[in-house]
Amino acid sequence: MPLWNSRFRKPLAERALRFSSSIETDKRLYNEDIDGSKAHVRMLVKQRIIPAADGRAILRGLEAIRREIASGKLKMDWRKEDIHTIIEERLVERIGERGKRLHTARSRNDQVALDERLYLRKEIEAVCAAIRSLQKSLLRQAEKHAGTIVPGYTHLQRAQPIVLAHHLLAYLSMFERDVERFRDCARRVNRSPLGAAAFAGTSLPIDRQAVARSLGFDGIIENSIDAVSDRDVLIEFISVCAITMMHLSRLAEEIVLWCTTEFGAAHMDDAYATGSSLMPQKKNPDMAELMRGKTGRVYGDLVALLTVMKALPLAYNRDMQEDKPALFDAADTARESLLVAAELVAHLRLNGRGVEAKQAEDYSHATDIVEYVVQKGVPFRTAHRIVGMLVAYCIAKGRSINSLSAREVRRFSRHLDPAFLASLTPALSVRRKQSAGSTSPREVQRQLRRWKRYLQKKGGRQVFS
Amino acid sequence: MPLWNSRFRKPLAERALRFSSSIETDKRLYNEDIDGSKAHVRMLVKQRIIPAADGRAILRGLEAIRREIASGKLKMDWRKEDIHTIIEERLVERIGERGKRLHTARSRNDQVALDERLYLRKEIEAVCAAIRSLQKSLLRQAEKHAGTIVPGYTHLQRAQPIVLAHHLLAYLSMFERDVERFRDCARRVNRSPLGAAAFAGTSLPIDRQAVARSLGFDGIIENSIDAVSDRDVLIEFISVCAITMMHLSRLAEEIVLWCTTEFGAAHMDDAYATGSSLMPQKKNPDMAELMRGKTGRVYGDLVALLTVMKALPLAYNRDMQEDKPALFDAADTARESLLVAAELVAHLRLNGRGVEAKQAEDYSHATDIVEYVVQKGVPFRTAHRIVGMLVAYCIAKGRSINSLSAREVRRFSRHLDPAFLASLTPALSVRRKQSAGSTSPREVQRQLRRWKRYLQKKGGRQVFS
Amino acid sequence: MPLWNSRFRKPLAERALRFSSSIETDKRLYNEDIDGSKAHVRMLVKQRIIPAADGRAILRGLEAIRREIASGKLKMDWRKEDIHTIIEERLVERIGERGKRLHTARSRNDQVALDERLYLRKEIEAVCAAIRSLQKSLLRQAEKHAGTIVPGYTHLQRAQPIVLAHHLLAYLSMFERDVERFRDCARRVNRSPLGAAAFAGTSLPIDRQAVARSLGFDGIIENSIDAVSDRDVLIEFISVCAITMMHLSRLAEEIVLWCTTEFGAAHMDDAYATGSSLMPQKKNPDMAELMRGKTGRVYGDLVALLTVMKALPLAYNRDMQEDKPALFDAADTARESLLVAAELVAHLRLNGRGVEAKQAEDYSHATDIVEYVVQKGVPFRTAHRIVGMLVAYCIAKGRSINSLSAREVRRFSRHLDPAFLASLTPALSVRRKQSAGSTSPREVQRQLRRWKRYLQKKGGRQVFS
Amino acid sequence: MPLWNSRFRKPLAERALRFSSSIETDKRLYNEDIDGSKAHVRMLVKQRIIPAADGRAILRGLEAIRREIASGKLKMDWRKEDIHTIIEERLVERIGERGKRLHTARSRNDQVALDERLYLRKEIEAVCAAIRSLQKSLLRQAEKHAGTIVPGYTHLQRAQPIVLAHHLLAYLSMFERDVERFRDCARRVNRSPLGAAAFAGTSLPIDRQAVARSLGFDGIIENSIDAVSDRDVLIEFISVCAITMMHLSRLAEEIVLWCTTEFGAAHMDDAYATGSSLMPQKKNPDMAELMRGKTGRVYGDLVALLTVMKALPLAYNRDMQEDKPALFDAADTARESLLVAAELVAHLRLNGRGVEAKQAEDYSHATDIVEYVVQKGVPFRTAHRIVGMLVAYCIAKGRSINSLSAREVRRFSRHLDPAFLASLTPALSVRRKQSAGSTSPREVQRQLRRWKRYLQKKGGRQVFS
Repeated sequence: MPLWNSRFRKPLAERALRFSSSIETDKRLYNEDIDGSKAHVRMLVKQRIIPAADGRAILRGLEAIRREIASGKLKMDWRKEDIHTIIEERLVERIGERGKRLHTARSRNDQVALDERLYLRKEIEAVCAAIRSLQKSLLRQAEKHAGTIVPGYTHLQRAQPIVLAHHLLAYLSMFERDVERFRDCARRVNRSPLGAAAFAGTSLPIDRQAVARSLGFDGIIENSIDAVSDRDVLIEFISVCAITMMHLSRLAEEIVLWCTTEFGAAHMDDAYATGSSLMPQKKNPDMAELMRGKTGRVYGDLVALLTVMKALPLAYNRDMQEDKPALFDAADTARESLLVAAELVAHLRLNGRGVEAKQAEDYSHATDIVEYVVQKGVPFRTAHRIVGMLVAYCIAKGRSINSLSAREVRRFSRHLDPAFLASLTPALSVRRKQSAGSTSPREVQRQLRRWKRYLQKKGGRQVFS
Repeated sequence: MPLWNSRFRKPLAERALRFSSSIETDKRLYNEDIDGSKAHVRMLVKQRIIPAADGRAILRGLEAIRREIASGKLKMDWRKEDIHTIIEERLVERIGERGKRLHTARSRNDQVALDERLYLRKEIEAVCAAIRSLQKSLLRQAEKHAGTIVPGYTHLQRAQPIVLAHHLLAYLSMFERDVERFRDCARRVNRSPLGAAAFAGTSLPIDRQAVARSLGFDGIIENSIDAVSDRDVLIEFISVCAITMMHLSRLAEEIVLWCTTEFGAAHMDDAYATGSSLMPQKKNPDMAELMRGKTGRVYGDLVALLTVMKALPLAYNRDMQEDKPALFDAADTARESLLVAAELVAHLRLNGRGVEAKQAEDYSHATDIVEYVVQKGVPFRTAHRIVGMLVAYCIAKGRSINSLSAREVRRFSRHLDPAFLASLTPALSVRRKQSAGSTSPREVQRQLRRWKRYLQKKGGRQVFS
Repeated sequence: MPLWNSRFRKPLAERALRFSSSIETDKRLYNEDIDGSKAHVRMLVKQRIIPAADGRAILRGLEAIRREIASGKLKMDWRKEDIHTIIEERLVERIGERGKRLHTARSRNDQVALDERLYLRKEIEAVCAAIRSLQKSLLRQAEKHAGTIVPGYTHLQRAQPIVLAHHLLAYLSMFERDVERFRDCARRVNRSPLGAAAFAGTSLPIDRQAVARSLGFDGIIENSIDAVSDRDVLIEFISVCAITMMHLSRLAEEIVLWCTTEFGAAHMDDAYATGSSLMPQKKNPDMAELMRGKTGRVYGDLVALLTVMKALPLAYNRDMQEDKPALFDAADTARESLLVAAELVAHLRLNGRGVEAKQAEDYSHATDIVEYVVQKGVPFRTAHRIVGMLVAYCIAKGRSINSLSAREVRRFSRHLDPAFLASLTPALSVRRKQSAGSTSPREVQRQLRRWKRYLQKKGGRQVFS
Repeated sequence: MPLWNSRFRKPLAERALRFSSSIETDKRLYNEDIDGSKAHVRMLVKQRIIPAADGRAILRGLEAIRREIASGKLKMDWRKEDIHTIIEERLVERIGERGKRLHTARSRNDQVALDERLYLRKEIEAVCAAIRSLQKSLLRQAEKHAGTIVPGYTHLQRAQPIVLAHHLLAYLSMFERDVERFRDCARRVNRSPLGAAAFAGTSLPIDRQAVARSLGFDGIIENSIDAVSDRDVLIEFISVCAITMMHLSRLAEEIVLWCTTEFGAAHMDDAYATGSSLMPQKKNPDMAELMRGKTGRVYGDLVALLTVMKALPLAYNRDMQEDKPALFDAADTARESLLVAAELVAHLRLNGRGVEAKQAEDYSHATDIVEYVVQKGVPFRTAHRIVGMLVAYCIAKGRSINSLSAREVRRFSRHLDPAFLASLTPALSVRRKQSAGSTSPREVQRQLRRWKRYLQKKGGRQVFS
């Protein structure tokens, strides 16, 4: 029986009940719901709103119900609207009339807003921990490849030689900003809506701050209408998940590329690859593809909740029940994708050597020549033009730059030093770099050390300390 | 054991297996999978690719497995990758070596593409049937309210009196276009991909057309690469669901508005309303709110699959496994929302009378006066200006138009007939309309008759006949 | 001065005027607006609603204004709300009072709905013509490469050898379904909303059917409320653009991949590539990247309009003004991307040979061996296992399949014929295929002929004939 | 002539040039581009990479070009690829060879990333200032209505009486979190990418930190690959715009509702309303509708950029050029919508009185009765049930609660005090509330004072101080 039916003369129609029941989704919140209820009940007792003995009975009852749910003993009957109803009804079944005091000075509106915030706190921790795992896998690969020189790409065309570690460290920075965003979101999440009741507050002498403190919140969401009617922190969380997945999809794309026969730059471990039901020779980078594909899912979750909330008048509207499928899906997808990525990266065999060899012929140190000419005092745009013509000449003749004779070289500019050209290898190219954060081995080593220290320190640190 | 593992030296890592297993989602396709396999096997026998006796054993085995799944006897073990693997493995368990012939000349790539199309055919029927139910509910209400005059709104401001049936019939037209779109999509869906194998076709002498015919398809998707690598018809289906939900969200919004104390234009049946866990007097239009909210969900599904498919190279990529959560969710959400809407509308008590009374004071027949003046030969823009000034005068004085004295009226234009103004009621306003499809009762009656005939005829008609 | 201001005592505030002015966007509709107005006026004259002489003056005036706008003489003053107001005001300026009859029996609501449909008809033609251009470029490349054998990919891993033409023809099929979708949309677009007036119809004796016929429509949108309040056909159009862009993004991705040094499968013409401001050697596939990126834009347009229309009560609401930026952007982006793609593909130098050479070592004819063994009577799954072990052996030993000795081969199965294995080349692999639509040269030739005939026939055919 | 053409043998094809030219969009960045170039050049001089005299000539030249652009003298020729090219070419035209030193140790990749961050800093300030304006308008209305009691709604059904100020303050809280989000984003924005060059850094002895400091950044984006290849802060900015628009769309929806004849709760100023081209009496809340509609636009921008960035390999790809249309549109739309909202709210005449009168009959103080009974010691759920039955009785009899006789009241519970029921007015209901943040006038006054102090203090404060 729903919690509200005394005013109604008919039960909810079967199809309507099934349509509106949220148990399949919100049963996940049972722990949060019980934690919140316990804090609420303790406050009700302390404020003498309900008798202490009843409070104790409720607390014991709730713990018993928690065990019943955890063990699968309490059936999640979809006919009972939602997890809040199941728990309250079961409580009354177990402890009788005293259980009917549980919902005092509370509405499902503030109760569900509380449960979601307790869930989000836990989930932000979990997603951030998953990012840290992935960062550590990336860092370990980077440390292994601090001396591996590979082609760097723009437009997927070979552009300039880089140190492979430098490339991998770029992802550490991206994911670090994602952690920052989750932390910023966490500050907004960590405020308690409980005590807003339906939306107007209550005439009973509750203590909102006390409940907030006892649940580890930084404070309350003051305005009671705001407390139950917004879902902005959920959208913010999903949007940060979406940005994280965007970053992850780029890494996944690169892994797929590196694993091709053509790039031949990475080798998957058998434990992270799959085969074909028809073609026996296939070994596919499915894990990378799946995380790339699941990006769409999180983008969809973001659009879903933004759409749900558009143009809803205050305060609570039932449309908002649709927040949970999007929220849970985004969190699960991001967290699991990151954890799989961490393992996948850890087990990847990156292979820079073959690539380095091929690099001699692709003119990708042309930029070094330009800068060399600039250092001779030639204006940059002129130097760029000189080297562009030199490259065009080589392409037309099918020659590599360092195969040119001194005479050929001089024809393009007297500032071009044939000896320098001949000596120019990918290794020299990266060593010549000197700007901060560049691909020069010295700069890369500095970054590696900094990241190592940082991640060791952060290892144990929590978002909510 | 996966279908492909002989080339691999390690099993898939636990987390990777869980991440990539699709059984929780694709188990829904077991009927389609078995239907497709049966048609495939019959063709293999007829083409003498496999022995007839083995074919018969497979057919019997598949039916037995169908029963095992339907009755819950066969466990949907998530460790077994997907529904196709579960069925094939179970077949081999039941009938031995002969079962190993099932997958001949087939890949999971064409198999899953087939299953999805079989599913879509059924689902298009179901969603269209749900639309028909809603149209019938709307039509019945329209028939009841062919004489009910209510304010018509633009910008949610009262604009001109209309017949309530006319308003409801607008929704029938919208939903009719949705049915058309589903039908157009169905033509593209109804082609068989089977026989494309992995993507290159097969060297075995299969008969793709025969399989297609036996499964009721209009033909095959010819190009074998195209057959397994596109998901455009799924996206098209979800986009039509999204447009349908857009239409439904507008009806839902109106029902929410009509049910307010302020509009007082509709009364929900208790069987389709819910209450509050805290506020005992509440009666809320949750079903309408939920279908409005679920619109976001379907929009999200559309974005999800569009994102998944963006920039994927041919042919199959594992990202495409993410098509099913979006597809199933969109179909379920649209179908169930429409069915609930059909019941909700059927049980709504629409109430035009109160509204009609209020209408006298809102100047919403001003347009009739403009057209009256135009009929006297005054240019439209001038007539608009005259009546605009008349209305401004009434507002300033707090007067209604038909309370003005003849002298007051004449001051604005000699073309204004005080008697006409005095006689102008909402009922006269709608009767005066004469354009095709207008709110004139005669036009509305004509539309009602046409819809009634049409829906009776369509009642039994199927999308795939 | 706005068309409606007589009832108001203050002009619109400056910032509100700028916020609501749509001229920057809707000025593009001036031709459609004038065409629609002319048809409307002719009908008004014929129905004797306005004097014939006034009608003639209006027609002349409108043509003069069309020239003024085309030549840039008439300033598109953003202070004048919209293109409809600019034209009507200018008409009155030019021909005086008679111009004030233009808006008789019409509202901007049905006028703008008409303009959009006239625009959409033209734009559907243009986008379909652009698709035809691209299909022809692809077909020409396919004809050139009917004998080029390349690796076919799944999961971006080499899977089986295919004929390059077969791969390109897959895109012809995809884009053909896009044309079909545009055509289906066109049928729904090609109905006239004019005469719905604000939404309730009119008391003046207009002839909606006549206007519709004279503008080439298939009929009217009957229900006058529906005619002005829906935007579903715009959303449908944008969704078809989005699906088309999805297809195009896949082609773009492949072109980017083919142009890499690593794949080396395509060579861009200098006229369709760009360089780098810093790195003189770079030659980038920017056109392909841009069309891939612009996919996001069209997806965004789709989400924009779906969101705008969500939960709007009937009939017109000003939110709907936001339909035009999304509509124009989607149409422009799709059309221009397709046209650039047509040129880009036409100028691509595809290069199968190098690729074919590499293919010997990648075991991508393993599936042919499986099917060979199946033809000997071995159950498929067993055959798959045998060949899987054979491949695993080759990988472990670093051997190619056709280098194996007869003895080695026999160890895996007595059904394996060493001679067959030794003879198995990519060319034989594709020739052995025999299923309909497969990559067998015979099937590919058949498809090529069919497409050639089809596109020649369609060349001149219009969506709206 | 493009900046890169020496290696190419043909100019870019006309259509390709038009397709890829970004000037129409990026011309908006000319100020940022010049500011960035000046800082860069000063550093080049200081580091003795270019001669001081040349540096001075460039600085003067750039300022002259800024004036030429501002005055419209320098034509924004779309054939010149982008704003960076236009400025560099013009510089060389003006100061000759010396201008060719401008692009030393820089690529357009880091240049455009810099310009976008300079733009974003400015735009975040502007959007936050617009939010502050709106908050102030809302606060002023709240101060006016600290004593106005209106129905509070859930599910758009009257739920409990609230103080109007309390409702308005909920929006202040929502928008305050938006400001917080923009600030958090600003910290990530405020780092300089300049000096990353194409992506690998440079061999010239630049000083990245010095440039960063001189442009007011908090530091550099260290990893040079990361610096040019990510757009996460743009997506974050747009997502915060989207959340802000979500909030604004709710306010807009409420204004539309309040302005209906039916709610009659607000009266628009003529300067912020518009009329109808056909119906002379109409006065429409177009500004509120437009901002509600424009929400779709910003959602679309978010989806666009998320889609663009999905699965792009590092480092720069031309797809990323599509970031600017989405970025500019989101910023413009959010900022202008907020500014219009600030004026609209300031000029709204809110009208609580009529509403308060109607409230007696809607049982919306039923919750107060429940809490009263709870205070007598009755368990909450039992009290809820008692009052639910009381309300059902009143509805069935068509009675109001305070019209019930003492006898009737006692029938439901001995804990019900007829005198309390009779005295229960909306005013008493709100006064009885005592929880923190509730609608009690005392709590509302406290919030009002806090907001007033806060906004006065923040008035002049900048995001980047």
